[in-house]
Amino acid sequence: MTVSLEDARALDAADPLRSARDRFVLPDGVYLDGNSLGPLPTATIDRLREVAEQQWGGDLITSWNRHGWIDAPARIAAKLAPLLGAKPEELLIADSTTVCLFKLLAAAVRARPGRTTILTEDRNFPTDLYVAQGLVEMLPHVELKSVAAGEIAGAVDDQTAVVMLTHVDYRSGARHDMAAVNAAAHAQGALALWDLSHSAGAVALDLNRDGCDLAVGCGYKYLNGGPGAPAFLFVAKLLQDELRSPIQGWMGHAEPFAFESDYRPALGIAAFLTGTPSILALTALEAGLDTFAGLSMADVEAKGQALLDLFIGEVEARCGPEVTLASPRDPTQRGSQISFTHRHGYAVMQALIERGVTGDFRAPDLIRFGFAPLYNRFEDAWRAADTLADILATRAWDEPRFHARAKVT
Amino acid sequence: MTVSLEDARALDAADPLRSARDRFVLPDGVYLDGNSLGPLPTATIDRLREVAEQQWGGDLITSWNRHGWIDAPARIAAKLAPLLGAKPEELLIADSTTVCLFKLLAAAVRARPGRTTILTEDRNFPTDLYVAQGLVEMLPHVELKSVAAGEIAGAVDDQTAVVMLTHVDYRSGARHDMAAVNAAAHAQGALALWDLSHSAGAVALDLNRDGCDLAVGCGYKYLNGGPGAPAFLFVAKLLQDELRSPIQGWMGHAEPFAFESDYRPALGIAAFLTGTPSILALTALEAGLDTFAGLSMADVEAKGQALLDLFIGEVEARCGPEVTLASPRDPTQRGSQISFTHRHGYAVMQALIERGVTGDFRAPDLIRFGFAPLYNRFEDAWRAADTLADILATRAWDEPRFHARAKVT
Repeated sequence: MTVSLEDARALDAADPLRSARDRFVLPDGVYLDGNSLGPLPTATIDRLREVAEQQWGGDLITSWNRHGWIDAPARIAAKLAPLLGAKPEELLIADSTTVCLFKLLAAAVRARPGRTTILTEDRNFPTDLYVAQGLVEMLPHVELKSVAAGEIAGAVDDQTAVVMLTHVDYRSGARHDMAAVNAAAHAQGALALWDLSHSAGAVALDLNRDGCDLAVGCGYKYLNGGPGAPAFLFVAKLLQDELRSPIQGWMGHAEPFAFESDYRPALGIAAFLTGTPSILALTALEAGLDTFAGLSMADVEAKGQALLDLFIGEVEARCGPEVTLASPRDPTQRGSQISFTHRHGYAVMQALIERGVTGDFRAPDLIRFGFAPLYNRFEDAWRAADTLADILATRAWDEPRFHARAKVT
Repeated sequence: MTVSLEDARALDAADPLRSARDRFVLPDGVYLDGNSLGPLPTATIDRLREVAEQQWGGDLITSWNRHGWIDAPARIAAKLAPLLGAKPEELLIADSTTVCLFKLLAAAVRARPGRTTILTEDRNFPTDLYVAQGLVEMLPHVELKSVAAGEIAGAVDDQTAVVMLTHVDYRSGARHDMAAVNAAAHAQGALALWDLSHSAGAVALDLNRDGCDLAVGCGYKYLNGGPGAPAFLFVAKLLQDELRSPIQGWMGHAEPFAFESDYRPALGIAAFLTGTPSILALTALEAGLDTFAGLSMADVEAKGQALLDLFIGEVEARCGPEVTLASPRDPTQRGSQISFTHRHGYAVMQALIERGVTGDFRAPDLIRFGFAPLYNRFEDAWRAADTLADILATRAWDEPRFHARAKVT
């Protein structure tokens, strides 16, 4: 059973989020790679110009006070809070996701002295594994234990210091049951640390309701903060006095401008700041978060799942057994992306991109489509499936030019 | 003996660097705080617009290949190399200064197993001390030993893993003898790690000639990279195989796009990359470094020292004993800033700023003037001294409004 292009357009016309698309500069074609890099928000252009030309150019060093640069990491975090179901004072914008993860993972291990294990999923996002591998090399009494996704809750024991997981898998889009993992960790006295890079801004999170301890996430995917945008970190209110960042810098000092020789951490979440953040990068991230203004994350998630359902239905109805769904069918068990396997996935994705449907390829055989509910339409989902069906039916992917690998894939 | 405004202008007319000033957007008045935040380069405006609108906005994810985003940390480092006397492949742009320092300090300690001490100066820049304090809390077998500046070389012993110093003191501008400290460290088998935040772009460095092992530095002071610009790090070629960053991320992996579960460091300096860098922030830093195009650092340093000499001469001749020079008189022993003490230094600096001479105050009593040879003129040095002399002669600083402290000082 398939829907028509007109059906898809009718769904767009009835979409309560449809005007959010106007907040973005979008290229021609269908962009289904917002889970790698969100598009440019229209407002970002003027905000960057204002901060570069008027503030930096005109007011120079006085801008730290006059234009609130010093408060930016906390001010922008407050705009992120409603997307995550967290309190503003539990969040900070800082560094890269990787550096934030290092800080919180090291802090968590230190907060559970005597425990010997960081528990993670064996197919966790690679950079998260690299961070943990680097940390355990520094701390010889700690080891990294990796198990399959379904075995996490059962593998927590009284030696587990912290469970470290990515909420939504970058390949399949499978979503962990956050509340259940947190409960399993807490039952054994362990902490839980989540990487929200593939869920923040795409699904409705409620970190406080679900008993989250710690989290980090990416600013340049669904949050639309620009290439390499600063990351965010979350430390639950009750843990902030107990945890200590291993990377101590002046921005996290109780009195940054007292220039004291001894480190005294700031009260609360500010202690997790380190060095001076890029104000240009923060400006773009703030404008990225402003694209969510007035939207409910329940609506965002509902639209995202409806887009995915339409896309799966069309692909399965029209592409035949050549592609196999590699993502959960249950909307509560997935993020906002859909992957299919195809033996020649790389070439298929290159052919799609040439026809204006931009998704992503992940080795060995996954074609991946990220749906961002703020700007992707039902028409986009229909067109992507239609283009894929045509490419497969005509074997259009079977051209030498579609097999040459680029540096960044 | 004082010079006249006409003398100063004649020096400007004869200055071989005088056209470099046209590369900047400069506010009215005299800006002597480029050692806190360099001004906006004219070219930065269009570069930011191009990267945001054409690249991010127009080409989205394909820009990583098409516009060389993936190569930016190394490409920009190559522009920095001639300023530091280093090889391009010894430098990277990454993270903040604080995070870079944490990486290299941890790597240095690990490269000298069995040794117990990080040696530093007791009046080192506070955030550098905080980093070291945080690291030794993670590594119980290592301690931080702080001695007076003059006692560093004599305090290195066979337990010293690494000597960590800031090249130019942020208060006085006093410059360490880099080659001598490196030699003292090496004689005991220790490494030396330099923070170049207050010297890069202001004095002629030759890290290779002087036997440097490791260094970090700031992008937003004399390098004009914008507020909170990314930092740089240097690892001498011969040490790159031996040292290992403790913060392992996907950008430092041998094959970042293979998404392997185990970390394998990239060959060479790239192993010190961690997470995805902000492309907007890198763009501004690259334009900042381009302001040095075609200039010799020997000329830059020579002009800087001549500016300092003129300023000291004028202040001492015209301000009397109310102010006392707190910086070295010998140009080879200082960076590109001059500090004086004044009992009411804070209020004096506020009065200067109100009259358009922007310097900085550092507790308890230092007024600090940073001279950036690319855009500061001899006329600026003369005017700053003239304004200071008038403020002191008339006690113009003695107004209640000049005593109220701002959040960022």
